Amino acid sequence: MALAVDDYVTRVTTTPTIIDRPDPVVWSRADDPEIQRFAEFGYVQRQGALDAGRVDACLEEVHRIGADSTMATYPRVIREAGSDAVRSIFDVHILSEVVQEAVEYSGAIELAREILGSDVYVHQSRLNYKPGFAGGAFYWHSDFETWHAEDGMPRPRACSASLALTRNEVYNGPLMIMPGTQKYFVQCAGETPEAYYEESLVSTAPTIGVPSEGHIAELYRSHGLDVLTGGAGSMTMFDCNTLHASGGNISPVPRANVFVVFNSVENELASPFAGTPRRPDFLARR
Amino acid sequence: MALAVDDYVTRVTTTPTIIDRPDPVVWSRADDPEIQRFAEFGYVQRQGALDAGRVDACLEEVHRIGADSTMATYPRVIREAGSDAVRSIFDVHILSEVVQEAVEYSGAIELAREILGSDVYVHQSRLNYKPGFAGGAFYWHSDFETWHAEDGMPRPRACSASLALTRNEVYNGPLMIMPGTQKYFVQCAGETPEAYYEESLVSTAPTIGVPSEGHIAELYRSHGLDVLTGGAGSMTMFDCNTLHASGGNISPVPRANVFVVFNSVENELASPFAGTPRRPDFLARR
Repeated sequence: MALAVDDYVTRVTTTPTIIDRPDPVVWSRADDPEIQRFAEFGYVQRQGALDAGRVDACLEEVHRIGADSTMATYPRVIREAGSDAVRSIFDVHILSEVVQEAVEYSGAIELAREILGSDVYVHQSRLNYKPGFAGGAFYWHSDFETWHAEDGMPRPRACSASLALTRNEVYNGPLMIMPGTQKYFVQCAGETPEAYYEESLVSTAPTIGVPSEGHIAELYRSHGLDVLTGGAGSMTMFDCNTLHASGGNISPVPRANVFVVFNSVENELASPFAGTPRRPDFLARR
Repeated sequence: MALAVDDYVTRVTTTPTIIDRPDPVVWSRADDPEIQRFAEFGYVQRQGALDAGRVDACLEEVHRIGADSTMATYPRVIREAGSDAVRSIFDVHILSEVVQEAVEYSGAIELAREILGSDVYVHQSRLNYKPGFAGGAFYWHSDFETWHAEDGMPRPRACSASLALTRNEVYNGPLMIMPGTQKYFVQCAGETPEAYYEESLVSTAPTIGVPSEGHIAELYRSHGLDVLTGGAGSMTMFDCNTLHASGGNISPVPRANVFVVFNSVENELASPFAGTPRRPDFLARR
């Protein structure tokens, strides 16, 4: 029996390295300027993907679901450590028809199909709410690294749409992307504990699935860092393997977004490459 | 015996309010454009106040003093919670001739004299070092509120120079100021514990000497928020009563600055208005 070779080895116990991504970033033959930018920088932004009415309706859903007593202990609703404040609501495209309609309206699905060169399905969706004054940071990471290791996503043939429900200013914890880093795979060190996601979802300083400071600094020097600001209703589509983060938010301006991950139907999940049990469905639909 | 009236009552046990500042911001008759901007916005910036040689020499002092084993337990050297990394070095103008010379070269002393309309002395000095990847935030506050309550500074006749030793980008935790807020005094709630400074110096979420979220949001709506970026060697002079903060820093770019507070010689410290014992000399020179 031949063993399949894993092109994206990570969670290594040896010294991790940065490897070139063997797969393309754009999987179709599309080459309009937006797709060319996506291929080069790993993301594109569109202003006004949602109108004000849809933005407001989605925001009301945060409050409705967050205050819903039947969801008080629901594992898909993640709250800030030491508080009842909602940090993320997973499966929001299932829990909320309002959000589902907004995603369909935004054009994200068509763009994802064009990038991934196939039909797509929702691998994960969530509504993130980072309150003013105390919103925590999300440290530097590649989403694909985690999805490969912990969810068995074979290849980086997925992309994420972030639909802004509040304006993103430089000072309220906007998305920061190192443009071009989607072309590498940054191995991460360390074995994956079981059910690590329970910790990583609420932690602002994760320790697993995190590139080394040396690698982050090296890629910053060569690629720089884009701070993605934009109005409420704007959309950012970014490659699943782009190195990104978002800072904390002590400004009075909250930050909320709908986050939808599209995976190619030709990139079905296998067993987690870290050898750990499958994570819950709301983190990785199959 | 007549009791003196305190124009800046704070640390109240009733509901705090925002009051108009009864004192001027600029205490001299100077009215050049820079002074006019200071009076209106509560701060001014100058690029190139320090040359590259002086910037490098000051940075070396952080490493020299931080690594000095005789200062390992020195109370003037504040380290990050749970780590040996230096966060602040107080009395740096005394501990380091290199820093003292740089401050004299920068023009900060002359500018402070012009603003305060008198001779000045150093109320406090420190070198702040916010490392990349993990630098903590400083929450919204007015320096004068603390210096009045905990150090007995009678009136807001002081100003602070921040000399940048690294470039300040929007993403590495730069100073954020609400321009114009120096014209108000934002009362804070709560009694002051003894030796509270031991906690507040290392905490990223202080609870005393902190305006209410409602007041911060109100002043943000009326005054907005300036993010103060600039090159290494740039200087920011700001009024002691300006509402300001700085975010965390998960970027790979460290942030360091020399911070010198000038107080008017006509504004000598009295007993702390909070009724607490005097704080150590390195926090408030008399």
